[in-house]
Amino acid sequence: MPSRQVIAIDMDEVIADALTRHLHLYNTEHKGSVEPHHLQGRPLREVVPPEHKDRLLAYAHEEGFFKDLGVMPHSREVIRDLQGKYDIYIATAAMEFRNSFVDKYDWMREHFPFIPWSHIVFCGDKGILAADYLIDDQVKNFATFKGEGILFTAPHNLKQEGYRRVSDWLEVRKMFLS
Amino acid sequence: MPSRQVIAIDMDEVIADALTRHLHLYNTEHKGSVEPHHLQGRPLREVVPPEHKDRLLAYAHEEGFFKDLGVMPHSREVIRDLQGKYDIYIATAAMEFRNSFVDKYDWMREHFPFIPWSHIVFCGDKGILAADYLIDDQVKNFATFKGEGILFTAPHNLKQEGYRRVSDWLEVRKMFLS
Repeated sequence: MPSRQVIAIDMDEVIADALTRHLHLYNTEHKGSVEPHHLQGRPLREVVPPEHKDRLLAYAHEEGFFKDLGVMPHSREVIRDLQGKYDIYIATAAMEFRNSFVDKYDWMREHFPFIPWSHIVFCGDKGILAADYLIDDQVKNFATFKGEGILFTAPHNLKQEGYRRVSDWLEVRKMFLS
Repeated sequence: MPSRQVIAIDMDEVIADALTRHLHLYNTEHKGSVEPHHLQGRPLREVVPPEHKDRLLAYAHEEGFFKDLGVMPHSREVIRDLQGKYDIYIATAAMEFRNSFVDKYDWMREHFPFIPWSHIVFCGDKGILAADYLIDDQVKNFATFKGEGILFTAPHNLKQEGYRRVSDWLEVRKMFLS
Protein backbone atom coordinates (compact mmCIF):
# COMPACT_ATOMS: atom_id res chain seq x y z
CA MET A 1 0.00 0.00 0.00
CA PRO A 2 1.50 3.37 -0.92
CA SER A 3 1.92 5.70 2.05
CA ARG A 4 -0.57 8.50 2.37
CA GLN A 5 0.28 12.01 1.26
CA VAL A 6 1.07 14.45 4.03
CA ILE A 7 -0.59 17.85 4.43
CA ALA A 8 0.91 20.34 6.87
CA ILE A 9 -1.45 23.10 7.99
CA ASP A 10 -0.46 26.43 9.53
CA MET A 11 -2.32 27.81 12.56
CA ASP A 12 -2.63 31.61 12.57
CA GLU A 13 -4.99 32.98 9.91
CA VAL A 14 -5.57 29.43 8.62
CA ILE A 15 -7.27 27.59 11.49
CA ALA A 16 -6.94 30.26 14.23
CA ASP A 17 -8.16 33.84 13.85
CA ALA A 18 -5.27 35.89 15.22
CA LEU A 19 -6.04 38.95 13.07
CA THR A 20 -9.23 39.78 14.98
CA ARG A 21 -7.24 39.73 18.25
CA HIS A 22 -4.51 41.86 16.70
CA LEU A 23 -6.96 44.46 15.43
CA HIS A 24 -8.85 44.54 18.72
CA LEU A 25 -5.69 45.14 20.77
CA TYR A 26 -4.44 47.78 18.36
CA ASN A 27 -7.72 49.62 18.00
CA THR A 28 -8.32 49.61 21.75
CA GLU A 29 -4.87 50.97 22.61
CA HIS A 30 -4.75 53.58 19.87
CA LYS A 31 -8.47 54.35 19.64
CA GLY A 32 -8.19 53.17 16.05
CA SER A 33 -10.74 51.68 13.69
CA VAL A 34 -8.64 49.45 11.45
CA GLU A 35 -10.66 46.63 9.93
CA PRO A 36 -9.55 43.61 7.90
CA HIS A 37 -10.59 45.17 4.58
CA HIS A 38 -8.18 48.06 5.18
CA LEU A 39 -5.23 45.69 4.74
CA GLN A 40 -5.80 45.21 0.99
CA GLY A 41 -2.82 42.96 0.52
CA ARG A 42 -0.55 44.61 3.07
CA PRO A 43 0.51 43.29 6.45
CA LEU A 44 -1.01 45.16 9.39
CA ARG A 45 2.38 46.65 10.28
CA GLU A 46 2.35 48.57 7.00
CA VAL A 47 -1.18 49.85 7.54
CA VAL A 48 -0.69 51.53 10.91
CA PRO A 49 1.29 54.78 11.36
CA PRO A 50 5.06 54.08 11.51
CA GLU A 51 5.26 55.23 15.15
CA HIS A 52 2.82 52.47 16.14
CA LYS A 53 4.72 49.65 14.44
CA ASP A 54 6.98 48.55 17.33
CA ARG A 55 4.05 48.38 19.73
CA LEU A 56 1.99 46.46 17.18
CA LEU A 57 4.71 43.84 16.72
CA ALA A 58 4.96 43.40 20.50
CA TYR A 59 1.39 42.17 20.97
CA ALA A 60 2.02 38.63 19.74
CA HIS A 61 4.97 38.29 22.14
CA GLU A 62 2.81 38.99 25.19
CA GLU A 63 1.37 36.23 27.32
CA GLY A 64 -2.20 35.36 26.46
CA PHE A 65 -2.20 36.71 22.90
CA PHE A 66 -2.80 33.23 21.44
CA LYS A 67 -5.30 32.18 24.10
CA ASP A 68 -8.96 31.73 23.15
CA LEU A 69 -8.54 32.75 19.51
CA GLY A 70 -11.51 32.12 17.26
CA VAL A 71 -11.61 29.02 15.06
CA MET A 72 -11.68 29.65 11.30
CA PRO A 73 -15.02 28.65 9.75
CA HIS A 74 -15.34 25.01 8.64
CA SER A 75 -11.70 24.24 9.53
CA ARG A 76 -12.63 21.55 12.04
CA GLU A 77 -15.02 19.60 9.85
CA VAL A 78 -12.83 19.76 6.74
CA ILE A 79 -9.66 18.71 8.60
CA ARG A 80 -11.54 15.74 10.08
CA ASP A 81 -12.55 14.79 6.55
CA LEU A 82 -8.99 15.24 5.26
CA GLN A 83 -7.73 12.84 7.94
CA GLY A 84 -9.64 10.09 6.17
CA LYS A 85 -7.32 10.29 3.19
CA TYR A 86 -4.18 12.20 4.24
CA ASP A 87 -1.71 12.39 7.12
CA ILE A 88 -2.42 15.75 8.70
CA TYR A 89 0.06 17.78 10.74
CA ILE A 90 -0.51 21.21 12.24
CA ALA A 91 2.72 23.17 11.90
CA THR A 92 3.09 26.65 13.33
CA ALA A 93 6.11 28.96 13.53
CA ALA A 94 5.60 29.20 17.30
CA MET A 95 9.35 29.41 17.96
CA GLU A 96 9.17 33.13 17.20
CA PHE A 97 6.95 33.61 20.25
CA ARG A 98 8.26 32.09 23.50
CA ASN A 99 5.03 32.93 25.33
CA SER A 100 2.80 31.26 22.75
CA PHE A 101 3.67 27.59 23.36
CA VAL A 102 1.25 26.61 26.11
CA ASP A 103 -1.59 28.74 24.72
CA LYS A 104 -1.20 27.20 21.27
CA TYR A 105 -0.98 23.69 22.68
CA ASP A 106 -4.07 24.14 24.87
CA TRP A 107 -5.97 25.71 21.96
CA MET A 108 -5.22 22.68 19.81
CA ARG A 109 -6.32 20.28 22.55
CA GLU A 110 -9.57 22.22 23.00
CA HIS A 111 -10.56 22.86 19.40
CA PHE A 112 -8.80 20.05 17.51
CA PRO A 113 -8.71 17.14 19.99
CA PHE A 114 -8.74 14.74 17.03
CA ILE A 115 -5.22 15.87 16.05
CA PRO A 116 -2.87 13.77 18.23
CA TRP A 117 0.03 15.52 19.98
CA SER A 118 2.35 13.53 17.74
CA HIS A 119 1.05 15.54 14.76
CA ILE A 120 1.53 19.04 16.16
CA VAL A 121 4.75 20.86 15.24
CA PHE A 122 6.14 24.09 16.69
CA CYS A 123 8.87 25.20 14.33
CA GLY A 124 10.48 28.19 12.68
CA ASP A 125 11.74 27.58 9.18
CA LYS A 126 9.13 25.40 7.47
CA GLY A 127 11.75 23.92 5.18
CA ILE A 128 12.17 21.27 7.89
CA LEU A 129 8.68 19.86 7.17
CA ALA A 130 8.54 16.59 5.21
CA ALA A 131 5.07 17.16 3.74
CA ASP A 132 3.61 17.08 0.26
CA TYR A 133 1.53 20.22 0.82
CA LEU A 134 1.66 23.18 3.17
CA ILE A 135 -1.50 25.23 3.59
CA ASP A 136 -0.31 28.60 4.87
CA ASP A 137 -1.15 32.31 4.65
CA GLN A 138 2.49 33.46 4.55
CA VAL A 139 4.29 33.04 1.24
CA LYS A 140 7.62 33.42 3.05
CA ASN A 141 6.98 29.97 4.52
CA PHE A 142 6.96 28.48 1.02
CA ALA A 143 10.51 29.70 0.22
CA THR A 144 12.31 26.71 1.77
CA PHE A 145 9.39 24.24 1.86
CA LYS A 146 10.06 21.29 -0.43
CA GLY A 147 6.45 20.37 -1.24
CA GLU A 148 3.71 22.51 -2.80
CA GLY A 149 2.61 25.62 -0.96
CA ILE A 150 -1.14 26.28 -1.02
CA LEU A 151 -1.88 29.91 -0.18
CA PHE A 152 -4.77 30.36 2.25
CA THR A 153 -6.31 33.74 1.51
CA ALA A 154 -5.97 36.38 4.22
CA PRO A 155 -6.36 40.16 3.97
CA HIS A 156 -2.58 40.65 3.98
CA ASN A 157 -1.84 38.28 1.07
CA LEU A 158 -4.49 39.27 -1.50
CA LYS A 159 -1.91 40.46 -4.01
CA GLN A 160 0.45 37.48 -3.80
CA GLU A 161 0.67 35.41 -6.96
CA GLY A 162 2.41 32.25 -8.05
CA TYR A 163 0.67 29.72 -5.80
CA ARG A 164 -2.53 27.73 -5.89
CA ARG A 165 -4.89 29.62 -3.62
CA VAL A 166 -7.85 28.68 -1.43
CA SER A 167 -10.10 31.34 0.05
CA ASP A 168 -11.73 29.25 2.76
CA TRP A 169 -11.94 25.71 4.13
CA LEU A 170 -14.72 24.66 1.78
CA GLU A 171 -12.31 25.32 -1.06
CA VAL A 172 -9.68 23.22 0.70
CA ARG A 173 -12.15 20.35 0.81
CA LYS A 174 -12.85 20.77 -2.89
CA MET A 175 -9.13 20.84 -3.77
CA PHE A 176 -8.17 17.74 -1.80
CA LEU A 177 -11.31 15.62 -1.66
CA SER A 178 -13.11 16.05 -5.00
CA MET B 1 25.54 25.20 -5.70
CA PRO B 2 23.85 22.10 -4.30
CA SER B 3 21.89 22.72 -1.11
CA ARG B 4 23.50 21.56 2.10
CA GLN B 5 22.53 18.32 3.74
CA VAL B 6 20.31 18.64 6.79
CA ILE B 7 21.04 17.02 10.16
CA ALA B 8 18.29 16.94 12.77
CA ILE B 9 19.49 16.41 16.34
CA ASP B 10 17.40 15.19 19.26
CA MET B 11 17.66 16.87 22.69
CA ASP B 12 17.25 14.47 25.62
CA GLU B 13 20.17 12.05 26.07
CA VAL B 14 21.81 13.51 22.93
CA ILE B 15 22.60 17.12 23.82
CA ALA B 16 20.75 17.36 27.18
CA ASP B 17 21.36 15.00 30.09
CA ALA B 18 17.84 14.14 31.25
CA LEU B 19 18.80 10.71 32.61
CA THR B 20 20.80 12.16 35.51
CA ARG B 21 17.77 14.25 36.52
CA HIS B 22 15.48 11.25 36.19
CA LEU B 23 17.71 9.05 38.35
CA HIS B 24 18.16 11.78 40.96
CA LEU B 25 14.39 12.32 41.32
CA TYR B 26 13.70 8.62 41.44
CA ASN B 27 16.47 7.74 43.88
CA THR B 28 15.58 10.64 46.17
CA GLU B 29 11.88 9.77 46.33
CA HIS B 30 12.33 6.02 46.69
CA LYS B 31 15.65 6.03 48.55
CA GLY B 32 17.02 4.08 45.60
CA SER B 33 20.49 3.77 44.17
CA VAL B 34 19.83 3.19 40.47
CA GLU B 35 22.79 4.26 38.32
CA PRO B 36 23.12 4.52 34.53
CA HIS B 37 25.05 1.25 34.27
CA HIS B 38 22.10 -0.63 35.80
CA LEU B 39 20.03 0.02 32.67
CA GLN B 40 22.07 -2.33 30.45
CA GLY B 41 19.97 -1.76 27.37
CA ARG B 42 16.62 -1.35 29.14
CA PRO B 43 14.62 1.84 29.62
CA LEU B 44 14.53 3.05 33.22
CA ARG B 45 10.85 2.14 33.52
CA GLU B 46 11.77 -1.53 33.14
CA VAL B 47 14.53 -1.33 35.73
CA VAL B 48 12.47 -0.02 38.65
CA PRO B 49 9.92 -2.14 40.55
CA PRO B 50 6.59 -2.27 38.66
CA GLU B 51 4.79 -0.37 41.43
CA HIS B 52 7.11 2.63 40.89
CA LYS B 53 6.56 2.85 37.15
CA ASP B 54 3.62 5.28 37.05
CA ARG B 55 5.38 7.70 39.37
CA LEU B 56 8.58 7.44 37.34
CA LEU B 57 6.78 8.29 34.12
CA ALA B 58 5.17 11.31 35.80
CA TYR B 59 8.46 13.13 36.52
CA ALA B 60 8.99 14.40 32.98
CA HIS B 61 5.47 15.84 32.93
CA GLU B 62 6.13 18.03 35.96
CA GLU B 63 7.12 21.68 35.64
CA GLY B 64 10.85 22.23 35.91
CA PHE B 65 11.96 18.73 34.93
CA PHE B 66 13.70 20.01 31.79
CA LYS B 67 15.14 23.13 33.45
CA ASP B 68 18.91 23.37 33.98
CA LEU B 69 19.73 19.94 32.57
CA GLY B 70 23.40 19.23 31.99
CA VAL B 71 24.89 19.63 28.52
CA MET B 72 26.29 16.47 26.93
CA PRO B 73 30.10 16.59 26.62
CA HIS B 74 31.47 18.19 23.45
CA SER B 75 27.97 18.66 21.97
CA ARG B 76 28.33 22.43 21.74
CA GLU B 77 31.70 22.52 20.00
CA VAL B 78 30.86 19.72 17.55
CA ILE B 79 27.49 21.20 16.59
CA ARG B 80 29.15 24.56 15.93
CA ASP B 81 31.61 22.75 13.67
CA LEU B 82 28.80 20.86 11.91
CA GLN B 83 27.06 24.17 11.15
CA GLY B 84 29.97 25.00 8.86
CA LYS B 85 28.98 22.25 6.47
CA TYR B 86 25.38 21.20 7.26
CA ASP B 87 22.02 22.76 8.05
CA ILE B 88 21.44 21.87 11.68
CA TYR B 89 18.03 21.61 13.35
CA ILE B 90 17.35 20.61 16.94
CA ALA B 91 14.18 18.49 16.96
CA THR B 92 12.68 17.22 20.18
CA ALA B 93 9.44 15.33 20.83
CA ALA B 94 8.42 18.03 23.29
CA MET B 95 4.73 17.70 22.38
CA GLU B 96 4.52 14.77 24.77
CA PHE B 97 5.27 17.12 27.68
CA ARG B 98 3.12 20.27 27.86
CA ASN B 99 5.18 21.66 30.71
CA SER B 100 8.49 21.24 28.91
CA PHE B 101 8.13 23.90 26.21
CA VAL B 102 9.46 27.01 27.93
CA ASP B 103 12.18 25.12 29.83
CA LYS B 104 13.42 23.51 26.63
CA TYR B 105 13.31 26.79 24.74
CA ASP B 106 15.19 28.67 27.47
CA TRP B 107 17.74 25.85 27.74
CA MET B 108 18.44 26.08 24.02
CA ARG B 109 18.82 29.87 24.19
CA GLU B 110 21.24 29.55 27.12
CA HIS B 111 23.41 26.65 25.98
CA PHE B 112 23.06 26.74 22.18
CA PRO B 113 22.54 30.44 21.38
CA PHE B 114 24.14 29.83 17.97
CA ILE B 115 21.11 27.72 16.91
CA PRO B 116 18.55 30.28 15.68
CA TRP B 117 14.92 29.90 16.83
CA SER B 118 14.04 29.12 13.23
CA HIS B 119 16.01 25.86 13.56
CA ILE B 120 14.40 24.53 16.73
CA VAL B 121 11.50 22.09 16.32
CA PHE B 122 9.11 20.81 18.98
CA CYS B 123 7.34 17.85 17.44
CA GLY B 124 5.96 14.40 18.12
CA ASP B 125 6.27 11.96 15.22
CA LYS B 126 9.69 12.61 13.70
CA GLY B 127 8.47 11.40 10.32
CA ILE B 128 7.54 15.05 9.70
CA LEU B 129 11.22 16.07 9.61
CA ALA B 130 12.70 16.75 6.17
CA ALA B 131 16.30 15.93 7.10
CA ASP B 132 18.98 13.68 5.66
CA TYR B 133 20.07 12.44 9.09
CA LEU B 134 18.50 12.23 12.54
CA ILE B 135 20.85 11.78 15.50
CA ASP B 136 18.66 10.32 18.23
CA ASP B 137 18.84 7.91 21.18
CA GLN B 138 15.36 6.42 20.56
CA VAL B 139 15.08 3.91 17.73
CA LYS B 140 11.28 4.39 17.74
CA ASN B 141 11.94 7.84 16.25
CA PHE B 142 13.56 6.23 13.21
CA ALA B 143 10.44 4.21 12.32
CA THR B 144 8.77 6.95 10.26
CA PHE B 145 11.82 9.15 9.62
CA LYS B 146 12.65 9.26 5.91
CA GLY B 147 16.40 9.93 6.17
CA GLU B 148 19.06 7.88 7.94
CA GLY B 149 18.78 7.43 11.68
CA ILE B 150 22.09 7.64 13.58
CA LEU B 151 21.77 6.03 17.01
CA PHE B 152 23.38 8.05 19.80
CA THR B 153 24.43 5.59 22.46
CA ALA B 154 22.60 5.82 25.78
CA PRO B 155 22.37 3.25 28.61
CA HIS B 156 18.86 2.25 27.49
CA ASN B 157 19.75 1.51 23.86
CA LEU B 158 22.94 -0.55 24.19
CA LYS B 159 21.34 -3.66 22.69
CA GLN B 160 19.69 -1.99 19.71
CA GLU B 161 21.07 -3.01 16.33
CA GLY B 162 20.47 -2.08 12.72
CA TYR B 163 21.66 1.54 12.76
CA ARG B 164 24.95 3.33 12.48
CA ARG B 165 25.88 4.23 16.04
CA VAL B 166 27.88 6.99 17.69
CA SER B 167 28.86 6.77 21.34
CA ASP B 168 29.70 10.43 21.91
CA TRP B 169 29.99 13.78 20.15
CA LEU B 170 33.60 13.24 19.14
CA GLU B 171 32.38 10.25 17.13
CA VAL B 172 29.71 12.44 15.55
CA ARG B 173 32.42 14.83 14.44
CA LYS B 174 34.42 11.97 12.96
CA MET B 175 31.39 10.59 11.10
CA PHE B 176 30.32 13.87 9.53
CA LEU B 177 33.48 15.94 9.25
CA SER B 178 36.30 13.54 8.39
